[in-house]
Amino acid sequence: MEFAPDALTRAKTEAVRAFLDECVIPAEPVLAAEVEATPDDWSPRPVVRALQRAARERGLWNLFLPGVHGGELTNLQYAPVAELSGRSPRLAPVAMNCAAPDTGNMELLAQFGSPEQRAEWLEPLLEGRIRSAFCMTEPAVASSDASQIATGIRREGEQYVINGRKWFATGAMNPDCAILIVMGKTDPEGPRHRQQSMILVPRKTPGVTVVRSLPVFGYDDRDHGGHAEILFENVRVPAANLIGEEGSGFAIAQARLGPGRVHHCMRAIGMAERALDLVRERASERTAFGGLLADKGTVRTWAAESRIEVEALRLLVLKTAWLMDTVGNKQAMTEIQAIKIAVPRAVQRILDRAIQLFGAAGLSHEQPLAEMFAAARAMRLADGPDEVHLAALGKAELRPRTPTAPH
Amino acid sequence: MEFAPDALTRAKTEAVRAFLDECVIPAEPVLAAEVEATPDDWSPRPVVRALQRAARERGLWNLFLPGVHGGELTNLQYAPVAELSGRSPRLAPVAMNCAAPDTGNMELLAQFGSPEQRAEWLEPLLEGRIRSAFCMTEPAVASSDASQIATGIRREGEQYVINGRKWFATGAMNPDCAILIVMGKTDPEGPRHRQQSMILVPRKTPGVTVVRSLPVFGYDDRDHGGHAEILFENVRVPAANLIGEEGSGFAIAQARLGPGRVHHCMRAIGMAERALDLVRERASERTAFGGLLADKGTVRTWAAESRIEVEALRLLVLKTAWLMDTVGNKQAMTEIQAIKIAVPRAVQRILDRAIQLFGAAGLSHEQPLAEMFAAARAMRLADGPDEVHLAALGKAELRPRTPTAPH
Amino acid sequence: MEFAPDALTRAKTEAVRAFLDECVIPAEPVLAAEVEATPDDWSPRPVVRALQRAARERGLWNLFLPGVHGGELTNLQYAPVAELSGRSPRLAPVAMNCAAPDTGNMELLAQFGSPEQRAEWLEPLLEGRIRSAFCMTEPAVASSDASQIATGIRREGEQYVINGRKWFATGAMNPDCAILIVMGKTDPEGPRHRQQSMILVPRKTPGVTVVRSLPVFGYDDRDHGGHAEILFENVRVPAANLIGEEGSGFAIAQARLGPGRVHHCMRAIGMAERALDLVRERASERTAFGGLLADKGTVRTWAAESRIEVEALRLLVLKTAWLMDTVGNKQAMTEIQAIKIAVPRAVQRILDRAIQLFGAAGLSHEQPLAEMFAAARAMRLADGPDEVHLAALGKAELRPRTPTAPH
Amino acid sequence: MEFAPDALTRAKTEAVRAFLDECVIPAEPVLAAEVEATPDDWSPRPVVRALQRAARERGLWNLFLPGVHGGELTNLQYAPVAELSGRSPRLAPVAMNCAAPDTGNMELLAQFGSPEQRAEWLEPLLEGRIRSAFCMTEPAVASSDASQIATGIRREGEQYVINGRKWFATGAMNPDCAILIVMGKTDPEGPRHRQQSMILVPRKTPGVTVVRSLPVFGYDDRDHGGHAEILFENVRVPAANLIGEEGSGFAIAQARLGPGRVHHCMRAIGMAERALDLVRERASERTAFGGLLADKGTVRTWAAESRIEVEALRLLVLKTAWLMDTVGNKQAMTEIQAIKIAVPRAVQRILDRAIQLFGAAGLSHEQPLAEMFAAARAMRLADGPDEVHLAALGKAELRPRTPTAPH
Repeated sequence: MEFAPDALTRAKTEAVRAFLDECVIPAEPVLAAEVEATPDDWSPRPVVRALQRAARERGLWNLFLPGVHGGELTNLQYAPVAELSGRSPRLAPVAMNCAAPDTGNMELLAQFGSPEQRAEWLEPLLEGRIRSAFCMTEPAVASSDASQIATGIRREGEQYVINGRKWFATGAMNPDCAILIVMGKTDPEGPRHRQQSMILVPRKTPGVTVVRSLPVFGYDDRDHGGHAEILFENVRVPAANLIGEEGSGFAIAQARLGPGRVHHCMRAIGMAERALDLVRERASERTAFGGLLADKGTVRTWAAESRIEVEALRLLVLKTAWLMDTVGNKQAMTEIQAIKIAVPRAVQRILDRAIQLFGAAGLSHEQPLAEMFAAARAMRLADGPDEVHLAALGKAELRPRTPTAPH
Repeated sequence: MEFAPDALTRAKTEAVRAFLDECVIPAEPVLAAEVEATPDDWSPRPVVRALQRAARERGLWNLFLPGVHGGELTNLQYAPVAELSGRSPRLAPVAMNCAAPDTGNMELLAQFGSPEQRAEWLEPLLEGRIRSAFCMTEPAVASSDASQIATGIRREGEQYVINGRKWFATGAMNPDCAILIVMGKTDPEGPRHRQQSMILVPRKTPGVTVVRSLPVFGYDDRDHGGHAEILFENVRVPAANLIGEEGSGFAIAQARLGPGRVHHCMRAIGMAERALDLVRERASERTAFGGLLADKGTVRTWAAESRIEVEALRLLVLKTAWLMDTVGNKQAMTEIQAIKIAVPRAVQRILDRAIQLFGAAGLSHEQPLAEMFAAARAMRLADGPDEVHLAALGKAELRPRTPTAPH
Repeated sequence: MEFAPDALTRAKTEAVRAFLDECVIPAEPVLAAEVEATPDDWSPRPVVRALQRAARERGLWNLFLPGVHGGELTNLQYAPVAELSGRSPRLAPVAMNCAAPDTGNMELLAQFGSPEQRAEWLEPLLEGRIRSAFCMTEPAVASSDASQIATGIRREGEQYVINGRKWFATGAMNPDCAILIVMGKTDPEGPRHRQQSMILVPRKTPGVTVVRSLPVFGYDDRDHGGHAEILFENVRVPAANLIGEEGSGFAIAQARLGPGRVHHCMRAIGMAERALDLVRERASERTAFGGLLADKGTVRTWAAESRIEVEALRLLVLKTAWLMDTVGNKQAMTEIQAIKIAVPRAVQRILDRAIQLFGAAGLSHEQPLAEMFAAARAMRLADGPDEVHLAALGKAELRPRTPTAPH
Repeated sequence: MEFAPDALTRAKTEAVRAFLDECVIPAEPVLAAEVEATPDDWSPRPVVRALQRAARERGLWNLFLPGVHGGELTNLQYAPVAELSGRSPRLAPVAMNCAAPDTGNMELLAQFGSPEQRAEWLEPLLEGRIRSAFCMTEPAVASSDASQIATGIRREGEQYVINGRKWFATGAMNPDCAILIVMGKTDPEGPRHRQQSMILVPRKTPGVTVVRSLPVFGYDDRDHGGHAEILFENVRVPAANLIGEEGSGFAIAQARLGPGRVHHCMRAIGMAERALDLVRERASERTAFGGLLADKGTVRTWAAESRIEVEALRLLVLKTAWLMDTVGNKQAMTEIQAIKIAVPRAVQRILDRAIQLFGAAGLSHEQPLAEMFAAARAMRLADGPDEVHLAALGKAELRPRTPTAPH
């Protein structure tokens, strides 16, 4: 057992940290001003394009891509990079082409896409020329239960015909978003986990209607392409657009979610560290009732509790990444569920305390805290609510053990 | 001891409940549509004016006003009315002219205003012809510590000259907002709680600049007049605009806050009840993993925990109101602090659980939950962060007791 | 609505408070010394007898007994008496003949016993000449689910024959314990809630074996008669010993538990108040790291949180008692469940904080805190674990409402 | 970074696990019976001696001793051994001569003792021929604040004279306990952290009175030598008994506590794993309300939450051990404080849930849960209450960072 990061990890994190300090953090007010100046625009703002160029020049592009698909880094090596990017969640991930949902979509195409699909969609995504969206959640059903997915994907000759309504398709309001990955049922009568398939639907296809954007705690996330409700009415795409084979949708979704959760969790930890930096600064400057906030017992307790949570959970995420690298996503299922549950809520608590310290400023856009809070809160629902994962994890934990079991 | 409400309370709550069911709840989507149609407008929308007329016709106007100032109801009798209004927090309070911060401002004028001040400002407020704002919080200092207030109110002949910067002046973006009550220091060298005064500043006075609106989470609350940052630069008002005498600002602020907290807390409990209604409905309709949500152990536990918190805290707020009516706000200090701390965070938890049950819909404007969550979260900072009150309450609790003390 | 206690309540609580201060609290070290001197004895100690005489002289005897059964006080009037008795839980309840499980057993006999049963058992219990035990819990099954009760009560001619094993029969190690109320099945095939009956079994009946005492967190509670495991092997009692009719056991148990929970909860609140008194004293005397404990932010927060919980929950218990008095136990079910869940765990938290303040002394018998903690912890399991009640309460909360429902 | 244990760790943990399964767990009821048979005896019971012989034969003796002092294992390698020993906390540590407080005392002597002190006391301790106690806590002061230590160590010629009162000296009731390490002040007027010294006091020295044993909750821990109150009245020992130099007591105490906390925390995690094993077994066998406990949502949630806490905290303890091995105890201060705070309370929660699942059995000695709960609860006070560590950790976290700081 060895807790020191290896040389490649150290080099990458130092480079990313420099990029953050020199380029990204200073760009945050620029983005805010650009968004304020063009409030009706859902496109990436100029400052994002500029940061993307800078990231490429620094070799900080597509770092998320797993080694097996041509990337440089293992999950374990990428994790600290993802954490750093979480310190500036609206800018750093997109600047390095490491933003959700594109990362998950790119991985999915790298792993399950046909050569033609990869050439047509993965290449431009890897180059940052287009963006993508993942259409899973449906308004009408509890879509964490895949057996309830109502969207239909029906084969008709050389085409599939798609009908259904999806929402919270993050990024799909962005005009650059060219391709949608849609989960639906090709075989509604099949075995529970073989009913679903995934299919590529170009956003411009007739029958695709981007209905509206849904806010999250009042944030429309327009610089990120928002969260779209999309209606699919008799949408026809070539049969070759199906990803993998019919009935593989559930398995592909599961495979996609492992690395995605590590990324999400590490970025969330980065948000917590950013919040702690802000807290440290504020507490050392502001006084109330005769003393610095940093000298108040309650503030110290908050800082200590936050530090403890961050340290313990970072290790759990790193171990999860290591397990995925060494024994595979499937064997890492308990840990993947554990971090999915534990990290967002801990980060939500840490941000809640930080907001409390900042008072009214913490609630507003003066500080990034409230927006990060909303993001952490949303993570507790993204990819299924925590409770689904708690139930699954608890079920596994309570399963009678054979003498050779690992714990 | 008697827990049944009296006849007047029952009559008023029945009338308010009918108004809610027949007029207010059906008006919610109308307000949403009106706001969407005129996104750049900070004025009250037509539907609000219509509801106000209806409330007046039904005799549901200014119910908040304490009996001693000409109102009908005691604090204890008004409390259930405030609770009901919290079920539709964007519409019901304003419809009945019972919305913060006007209620507190009207009480303040009723209790401390001169006859001239009451004639000029209280009358039109009671008639709903104008709105008001309360300018207490400052961006530069921890303003829950009144000794840190930096805004100056300097006497010059027959005028006062005001300089300072305030923010989170709720309602001040509204064009109808005609009058600001400003807290500042008339005697920065005086005894700690005699330095402050309150003064009436018409919003149109030269030197008053409404700088911008600050959102709470992503909500700008534009139908409520938002939360303004206001700059006061050599603002001159007649000396007669001072409320009470010089040095009485802190005492007036304290007096203002007691009833305000009861109102806030009861409305928050109303938000929780609204959330529980929504939860009940959703859980009885939606299925996941083979069963109704209402039949899941976790959902039942959430519902039970929420019900327990609501029942216990409602009683504590009612007792606080009763104490204010019978022994006065000062003797009710411990209970006022207790509800200020306990209610908003409990309601935040209840809303958090409700959001979790609703999934993505709960985060968005599809349901009122996320916006109510933001409101409950903000209450933990309004009128000073919980921690200030916890420290004061704890200090009192730990004070050595004389044998005759009540507990 | 009226929160002031009536004159009778005030008079009784003043009398009980005086009894506590003058007699009971000073007797605590006497009891400890007497127990230490006779460690193998399970009988009431001399100091208990003396306190019982004093209580009778002061007219503080059997105050728990509801007015409908000849007592003086309503549930609402008795509640503050029960709270006060909880301040000295090992002595005050027994001194006033208001200790569990006798109170519940006496109420049960008063309500459901035949004239002969009342003459034979209720009278000596009311006079404090004998004690009783309630035999419900079984080691082999989850006995909160009454359908799992395994003890059999079989009719044979003019007798019933009882076979089974019970445990945690509180008080049954006490040689004064003369009578056991045993829950068992007379009709194992009957409808789920009509299978059970209750029967009176004199402790000396052949076939009754008191096997051993079970400690709770290391405490054997020998001054209270401990918590016995009892084996019933072909125990024969006259048919007239059955309480009520065959099949009424479940209903009687439910009826017994309502007042019992109010008593338990009020006593628990009394334990919390005792702990807060001790905390107040300690925090005002002890210094660490340059200041009194009472001046530390964390200690103040603890004190405040504890005060808030006590105030809110006391009101909920009082309202529950009022509901039982006015609309009956059945209509008060939600509130009875609510206090059963909420009070013991809150008191456990309050005691946990108090122990933390006291350090090592808090863990030991130097202070009553650890023992009261164990008692509060045990209450979360007594009469069924909290989770059973949470599930039932949540189920009721989620039941679709008719328009006229009370909330 | 690498999360797999090395070969030596794997070998040792396999050997210890076998010892546990084959010898220790089966000996638990034997110990209980031996203690019940000789209730007034504070000596180690025969079964302990037998297990000690078995452990030596298996080469599982003194594994705690750090490599630098002749031991085999690093802190990181020993940690999983300590965890396993925590699964049977009354037997496994003592069987392997790895029980507190002897481990800390042996390390202290190995690191700071003179050759003569090591020969006289360390050798027999390493051989298990004698036991030791650590006399730090005092009843009269908050002794987590070392500046308040009231025990005096006064030089008189070639002797030191000790006066003071200590309590919670774990193990000191054991007749085998031959040596006490006493913390006191040699220079009450010196700099805050140079006032204290540590000195070796044979338990038989005139003037040493073992006053009584203090229980923890209701447990007297007599098989472990209890927790003694000890009075030192003009106790004279040779000057050579001083450990290190005058004024080094505080520094030695700090050095002693680092590894001790890792041991405590890992054993606590072992207790949690034992509880989870018991929960798994119980939940798979017992039914209530129509289903296995293992199929209830609440029970699954408990199991999941417990698993998550155990996994995250184990990693944090392991990283702490690794830091101590690689950069030293001083550089690992934040992590040492973090685990001291986070682990015991998490384990307390896990045990609380397990008790709740077991019902009455969980509260009694039928299961090891209540006793382990008491042990975990006590850890939150041992070596200073959590709050002292939270304050220190928070203070460090809020200290302004230089650009090169590690986080």
